[in-house]
Amino acid sequence: MSEAMPGASVPPAELRLIGLRDVPEVKPGDDLAEIALAAALKTGVDFAPDDVLVVTQKIVSKAEGKLVDLTAIEPSPLAQGFARWGKDPRYIEVVLRESVRIVRMARGLIIAETRHGFVCANAGVDASNVSGDMACLLPDDADASAARLRAELSRRLGIDLAVIITDSFGRPWRAGITNVAIGVAGMAPLSDYRGQPDDFGRVMSASLMAVADEIASAAELVSGKVSRCPFVIVRGYPYPRGEGSGRELLMDASLDLFR
Amino acid sequence: MSEAMPGASVPPAELRLIGLRDVPEVKPGDDLAEIALAAALKTGVDFAPDDVLVVTQKIVSKAEGKLVDLTAIEPSPLAQGFARWGKDPRYIEVVLRESVRIVRMARGLIIAETRHGFVCANAGVDASNVSGDMACLLPDDADASAARLRAELSRRLGIDLAVIITDSFGRPWRAGITNVAIGVAGMAPLSDYRGQPDDFGRVMSASLMAVADEIASAAELVSGKVSRCPFVIVRGYPYPRGEGSGRELLMDASLDLFR
Repeated sequence: MSEAMPGASVPPAELRLIGLRDVPEVKPGDDLAEIALAAALKTGVDFAPDDVLVVTQKIVSKAEGKLVDLTAIEPSPLAQGFARWGKDPRYIEVVLRESVRIVRMARGLIIAETRHGFVCANAGVDASNVSGDMACLLPDDADASAARLRAELSRRLGIDLAVIITDSFGRPWRAGITNVAIGVAGMAPLSDYRGQPDDFGRVMSASLMAVADEIASAAELVSGKVSRCPFVIVRGYPYPRGEGSGRELLMDASLDLFR
Repeated sequence: MSEAMPGASVPPAELRLIGLRDVPEVKPGDDLAEIALAAALKTGVDFAPDDVLVVTQKIVSKAEGKLVDLTAIEPSPLAQGFARWGKDPRYIEVVLRESVRIVRMARGLIIAETRHGFVCANAGVDASNVSGDMACLLPDDADASAARLRAELSRRLGIDLAVIITDSFGRPWRAGITNVAIGVAGMAPLSDYRGQPDDFGRVMSASLMAVADEIASAAELVSGKVSRCPFVIVRGYPYPRGEGSGRELLMDASLDLFR
C-alpha cells in the first residue's frame, strides 16, 4: 500500500470547523501565511498540530495574481458565437484559453477540462468576488500553492499541519455545486477502506473515500460565499498521512465513462 | 423566493460534528429514534435545537427491512452475461431490478438511474456491511424515512431538528466516492446565493450550494465506514429553513448534459 493511499484511520468522536473571520481583501503578492496567522489571532484561535487549514481558491488566485483584465481580451469567432447565449464574449474567450478539451458546450454552459486536469464549468474561470472587468483563473499549480502555505505556516508555528485549497464544482445528475479539493499538501486525499473487513468480516471492494473533497465540502458550510471567511480550520480529523496531491482526486481519463 | 430555496444564512464561526458511538447492529423493525437517543446517552451528548442528525442509509434500510436474500434470486440472461466481469449474477439481477435506466454499463461497472431518481453505481444496491448472501437496497422513500425520524425525535425531545439520510456515491471525472444526501427533512437542501451581491456588490449568477450534500460529506469524516457510528450530529450550522426533500438535489433530466 503506497504512502499516498494508506489504510483509513479510526474516525474521531468529534470534529470542529472554525472559520477565520474578517480577512481583508487579498491583493497580488500578498503573503497568505501572514494573513492566515493574523486572522487566527483576530478570531482568537491558535493553530494546533494536525489541523487541516482549508483555503478558498479565490484568495490563492488573487495572491498569485491570476487575474485577467477582460478589456484586453479579443474574443475569437468561437467565443463570439457562444456568447449569443447571453454571455460576455471576452469571458468566454478566457474560458476557452484555459481549456484543453471541451466536454460539453450547450445551452450556455461550458464543461471543460482545464490545463490542470480538472473537469468543471467554465474551466474554473470565475467573475464573482473580483472587481470590475476582471476574471479570476485557477492557480497554476494548486498543490504547489498548498505546499508553500503549509511549509511557511509550519516554519512559523513549529507544528505540522495539512492544507487544502478548494473550489466549488458542479456535478452531473445532482443539482447545485459543492466544494472540492483542487490542491492538497500534507495529507493523502483518498482514504482507502478497500481490503479492510467490514463489520461482518467481509472484505469491502469499493470504498475509496475522497476525504479531501469531503473536508472541502465541510469547510464550505463555514466559509460560505459572502462573508470574507476564506480560511477554515478543520480540527480533530485523523487524516491519512502522505504528501498528497489534488491530482490523486482526478479520475484517470482511461477509466472515465463520462469524458 | 420559495420556502424550499431561501436566501443563504450568515455562516457560523464554528461548526461541531459529533459521532454517536457503539450503535448496535440494526435489525428490521427497529426504532431508529430509540436507537439514536440511546446512542446519544451512551456518547454523553444531548440533542440541541437546530441540530442536524445525519444518518447512514444502511441502518435506515436495515430497519425498514430493505434486504434481499440473494439465494432466492434467479438471474436473467442479461445479469448472467454481465456477471462475466467477475460479479455475482444474482447481485447484478437485483441491481437491474432496482434500475429504471442504465446510464453506463461497461467494464464491470453499472451506473444506473434508480426508481427514486438517483444516478449512482449499482443502483444503490450494496453488499457490504450486511450478513451472508444478502444485498441491501435503498429505502423506498428516504425523505419519508427522514421525516418519520425527525417527527419522532422532535416529539420525544420537544425540540426541532433536521434529519439527513446519506449514501456514498461516485461521480464522473473525480476519483473516490463522497457522501451525499438521499433523504432530507426539516431543512432546505440547497442554499441559494444567486441574486445576492458578492463582496464587490456584483450579483452572483451561479452559486446554488448543495449544502445538504456538503453536510452529508462532513458527517462521513466522523462516521467512517467501519466503526458502528451511523449517526452524526452536526451542530452550529444555520441551515436554510424548509421542509426539504432529497429530490431537490436531483438534477432535472431535461437540464442534464450527462444523462
